[in-house]
Amino acid sequence: MKTEQPILVIGSIALDDVETPFGKRESSLGGSAIFFSLAAAYFTPVRIVGVAGTDFPDSALQLLSDHKIDTRGLEIAEGKTFRWGGCYHQDINYRDTLYTDLNVFADFQPKIPPTYRNTPYLFLGNIQPQLQLEVLATMHKPKFVALDTMNLWINTTRAELVEVIARVDLIMINDSELRELTGELNLLQGLEKLHHMGPSIAIIKQGEHGAYLSYRNRLFYAPVHPVRQPTDPTGAGDSFAGGFMGYLAQCDRISFGTMKKAMLYGAIMGSLLVEHFSVDGLIRLEPSIVEERYRTLRKIVAL
Amino acid sequence: MKTEQPILVIGSIALDDVETPFGKRESSLGGSAIFFSLAAAYFTPVRIVGVAGTDFPDSALQLLSDHKIDTRGLEIAEGKTFRWGGCYHQDINYRDTLYTDLNVFADFQPKIPPTYRNTPYLFLGNIQPQLQLEVLATMHKPKFVALDTMNLWINTTRAELVEVIARVDLIMINDSELRELTGELNLLQGLEKLHHMGPSIAIIKQGEHGAYLSYRNRLFYAPVHPVRQPTDPTGAGDSFAGGFMGYLAQCDRISFGTMKKAMLYGAIMGSLLVEHFSVDGLIRLEPSIVEERYRTLRKIVAL
Repeated sequence: MKTEQPILVIGSIALDDVETPFGKRESSLGGSAIFFSLAAAYFTPVRIVGVAGTDFPDSALQLLSDHKIDTRGLEIAEGKTFRWGGCYHQDINYRDTLYTDLNVFADFQPKIPPTYRNTPYLFLGNIQPQLQLEVLATMHKPKFVALDTMNLWINTTRAELVEVIARVDLIMINDSELRELTGELNLLQGLEKLHHMGPSIAIIKQGEHGAYLSYRNRLFYAPVHPVRQPTDPTGAGDSFAGGFMGYLAQCDRISFGTMKKAMLYGAIMGSLLVEHFSVDGLIRLEPSIVEERYRTLRKIVAL
Repeated sequence: MKTEQPILVIGSIALDDVETPFGKRESSLGGSAIFFSLAAAYFTPVRIVGVAGTDFPDSALQLLSDHKIDTRGLEIAEGKTFRWGGCYHQDINYRDTLYTDLNVFADFQPKIPPTYRNTPYLFLGNIQPQLQLEVLATMHKPKFVALDTMNLWINTTRAELVEVIARVDLIMINDSELRELTGELNLLQGLEKLHHMGPSIAIIKQGEHGAYLSYRNRLFYAPVHPVRQPTDPTGAGDSFAGGFMGYLAQCDRISFGTMKKAMLYGAIMGSLLVEHFSVDGLIRLEPSIVEERYRTLRKIVAL
């Protein structure tokens, strides 16, 4: 019996200029919605809402279609695509942002195609909380809503962000964002406050150190799948989110059990992503590779 | 059938002045050998070799004896005990060292009582590699030797340190020490070089983020036992080491299976330690508390 359900993701679509100790890529495909979509599409159909400029390559649209990602919500607007430039340190866990040119993303007004409005799984990627609220209002009672955000919105549009947080099932942030959002330095105390703000489910990402899932006073920890040579970590968090949501929508069952497995698939998508530049690690994924990493990840914590 | 074997630990014995966001303690019991001993003594008899000054309180010696720690190797020398002063930040994972007064520890020459020389489990705490070599030479074929060290010795006495490393079964260091020792920023590549230096077993501690065990191309990850209010992290790494070695010597069986469980007991001793000042979290430990944490830690990674 096929239970897999589609996911709607809203977020950024970008062309990235990235330099790491292992090489350099210019105008490569990036953006949170892109990484998320390719990771999630391994598990289930994905619908993408975002904006790109007229310079967005046809080959990129083709790549998304090849992975059964529905791009009818991907608007091409007059102007240039959002562009991000970054340079990673010798220690690849650190980077400098060289520039952020919002371009057409600056005036992004999400347009949800009518056929998308019944999508049961919704991922509100990291955009202005006001836009996230508008998207929520447009959707027709999604079954499961997850939210990503960032320090910028915590500091500049806190009231609207708090409003979004109150309306979602899951919030997925990193440990420094948890601290800024709750004012708590301690994980357990921060989680308490976070749940009090609304979401019954929280995922706290700790980058190279794995991630915690918190649900109804229960805690689960997913380690990272160690990678021998991380090449380009851009989009690792978004790939984690895509793997998590993708597996969950594929099962179409929200329980601590399915979410724990989803955490591992999130970690796996992150590990596959970082081994290559841009989205290269996520294209045409072989199930045998994914399942082998799943077994490895299980063994790493098994007695 | 009782299999538990004694451990000999050599390391520092200190009186600490510690300030954390949760209070202040002066002249409180500290030092790597002390934290290690109290954690390990929960599992198995411990023999301690170290030096303290004439100001070392009788009550501290009594506390060690009460925990069945053999202090015949704890020398009381003319002068003052090693004293360390530290101040923890609001984010308790960071601290400033206010002072380090070596006092009698400056001229420490380990004297191993003859009755100690057959001890099967040996923990070479963080002291000068030259002294670690001398201790090794004095011992009569220990069954299992573990080594702790620090950046200072990596940078100042590398040749001697490399010699010690070549002679031990296990090396236990943190991730920054792994980087300094091997020159590798990546965990897997660093571990490869580390094993090549001699030890078949390596433990890489990542502080608040848990620890990796690496043994014959197999990797195990032990998460931390989350603590709602860490009060004083001084000695957490030494308590981890004590819990690990204590459980292993109690089983008296060196296998990946026993070492994995030992990692969890190490994490538990660390979590118990940080909840209180000084050694308070490790005294008169109730098995029911320890076993409850073991179950919690298992659940955190169990599907």
